[in-house]
Amino acid sequence: MVVLSPRYEASHALANVRGSAIRDLLKLTEQPNVLSMAGGLPATELIPAQRIAESAARIIADSTALQYTVSAGVSSCREVVAEYTGTDDPGRVLLTHGSQQALFLLAHALVNPGDLVIVDDPVYVGALQVFQSVRARVRALPITPSGIDVDLLREWLREGERPRIVHTVSNFHNPGGVSASEQNRVELARLADEFGFVVVEDDPYGKLRFSGAEVRPIAAHSDRVVLLGTASKVLAPALRVGWVSGPPELVALVERLRQGADLCGSTFSQLMVADLLADREWFSGHIADVCSEYSSRATALTESLQRTFGEAAQFTAPEGGMFCWVRLPGIDTTKLLPAAVDAGVAFVPGAAFAVDADFGDCLRLSFATLPPDQLAEGVRRLAAAYEAVQPTQ
Amino acid sequence: MVVLSPRYEASHALANVRGSAIRDLLKLTEQPNVLSMAGGLPATELIPAQRIAESAARIIADSTALQYTVSAGVSSCREVVAEYTGTDDPGRVLLTHGSQQALFLLAHALVNPGDLVIVDDPVYVGALQVFQSVRARVRALPITPSGIDVDLLREWLREGERPRIVHTVSNFHNPGGVSASEQNRVELARLADEFGFVVVEDDPYGKLRFSGAEVRPIAAHSDRVVLLGTASKVLAPALRVGWVSGPPELVALVERLRQGADLCGSTFSQLMVADLLADREWFSGHIADVCSEYSSRATALTESLQRTFGEAAQFTAPEGGMFCWVRLPGIDTTKLLPAAVDAGVAFVPGAAFAVDADFGDCLRLSFATLPPDQLAEGVRRLAAAYEAVQPTQ
Repeated sequence: MVVLSPRYEASHALANVRGSAIRDLLKLTEQPNVLSMAGGLPATELIPAQRIAESAARIIADSTALQYTVSAGVSSCREVVAEYTGTDDPGRVLLTHGSQQALFLLAHALVNPGDLVIVDDPVYVGALQVFQSVRARVRALPITPSGIDVDLLREWLREGERPRIVHTVSNFHNPGGVSASEQNRVELARLADEFGFVVVEDDPYGKLRFSGAEVRPIAAHSDRVVLLGTASKVLAPALRVGWVSGPPELVALVERLRQGADLCGSTFSQLMVADLLADREWFSGHIADVCSEYSSRATALTESLQRTFGEAAQFTAPEGGMFCWVRLPGIDTTKLLPAAVDAGVAFVPGAAFAVDADFGDCLRLSFATLPPDQLAEGVRRLAAAYEAVQPTQ
Repeated sequence: MVVLSPRYEASHALANVRGSAIRDLLKLTEQPNVLSMAGGLPATELIPAQRIAESAARIIADSTALQYTVSAGVSSCREVVAEYTGTDDPGRVLLTHGSQQALFLLAHALVNPGDLVIVDDPVYVGALQVFQSVRARVRALPITPSGIDVDLLREWLREGERPRIVHTVSNFHNPGGVSASEQNRVELARLADEFGFVVVEDDPYGKLRFSGAEVRPIAAHSDRVVLLGTASKVLAPALRVGWVSGPPELVALVERLRQGADLCGSTFSQLMVADLLADREWFSGHIADVCSEYSSRATALTESLQRTFGEAAQFTAPEGGMFCWVRLPGIDTTKLLPAAVDAGVAFVPGAAFAVDADFGDCLRLSFATLPPDQLAEGVRRLAAAYEAVQPTQ
């Protein structure tokens, strides 16, 4: 008998997935004394733990809340989410295990190996990983200050490109910080209708607006748009409740795949989310508090950057969300990172989010996780690292 | 501008997935006045809601329990689960969103389209769906009274078949009811070592033993076995905590895919499972209670079957788990079902679990969901339907 040594070969699909440089980096940066602006975590101290615990106490005491539920999710929660996302049809809503699962299931339900999928550049890395795992052919459109570059998209379409999916983060882009303009959204929706692709509008941050006017979702302009959302940034990540809202025919495909993926979500978590989102007065107060604090933090960050770096740092002041995308012309931010960690501050280099473009002189700073004084201190440490790494020109 | 009508074409992967006949059936059978032995739900009234609510109250009040966690799961829970599954290395354990997710991720991490995967016949339908979704070539081995037919497997291997995965439910098979013998497990592990395939040992029901002696897992006999488990049947399904325990190299592949699949599980759910499983005295008392009640229910079912059907029904008395697999020679159970629902009782016809074999005269009865008197009444109604549908011989 020949006993083979245990070796396990990854499938082609998995082998195709870029490891998350961010997750690997986070291990580096999770050292004591390092002020991390690298992560993508909402502020822990702003999570309404007491209100959530009250909801849990009421709901979990009933054993029916601890039983399996249907793959599409608890109907009362689908109803509340439908209202929350501005549709009046719970049949358009399917609850998922965070919006990342919605993205994963959509990709697996719609994309065949070799199909074209178009993403943002810089990209939300979780989206890139998903489309790599279905072995899509991925192209990336630059993010302009008013959203994904629809002019270039139109050119590609006229040249004969036929994407299955165009994925974009419409509000407070991760990592780019910007939001798509009304005109940009209308045009993207129009192209989806004309050329028959599905727009996946990823919107985890839309409610975290602290300045500027709200813009209607891309989904308001076409029935070929699916809108992804989540309770992670407005209530708590560990609830693991996200959703996909879209044409029932498309939602049904996701539901069929979900049965095999993990059967169903958590009954009690979904009931808790329904309870919390339906408590309108409390919820709007809570969101106002979060936005107010994030606004202070964003201001602390951008004022410190302005004061400390002056012309050497280019960025747009965020109107919401959790991230600020900064360009340091002449600096290789991947090389800057070790010096920054030595100086006691962490960020994610732009290269980690690059698809076709080169964001070697960019970096993503999260202003959500640290309080204002620590953000200011973080910028001081970043400047010290910057001084140590001379600009290449 | 040509506006196409919205149409959404499923990917080849999804188009390949058989719809769950069981889920479709359940909709039929969820009528008032129908005693359902069709579902696969653990008894709701045996879920320890009060103890779980106590755990939730303590854990959820702390906002760090509401934050994201790492993809592999909360380390304290991995430690407790490692002990629970009989390994001393938490590095071998990755927590998933129910064991169904573990199965889904394993399949996607290891199987390429066209690769051979071998399953049980009758099969756990959730496994079949997963392997169809990765477009595996699926063959099925008959379940014998002592487990998967390893003699036939050896024959296939000698003929040159090279499976990537052999999947089997080792204890209290769903739907077959039987458990694999020690010898059967040893032989399967030996073949895995010799021919280099991975055994996925699916064990959601192992702790629900009410008679007979416990048998060591297949995983005890080879490092090419991954063991899947879940809190769903011993604590509560809505916790959505399952796990995969296996070689760290293989667990790492699953972890990498999990990042894209849904980032991570629920921090507080995992902390609750850690708390509940680590409370050994309480947990063993709880499991003893569940087993005692399931034993009474299994006895009520099998005694009623024996009394009412006599020689007309063939089955093995269950030693644990939730299911009894019954053969009614000469009866087409798919045709029996409408008559049964008319008589006020539901089951799942054997054909729903058939891969290569024909289980047209079989049916699956769950004894977990109904109390003893309702199980006896269910069997009386089944007999009435049986009388109405004459045997074909």
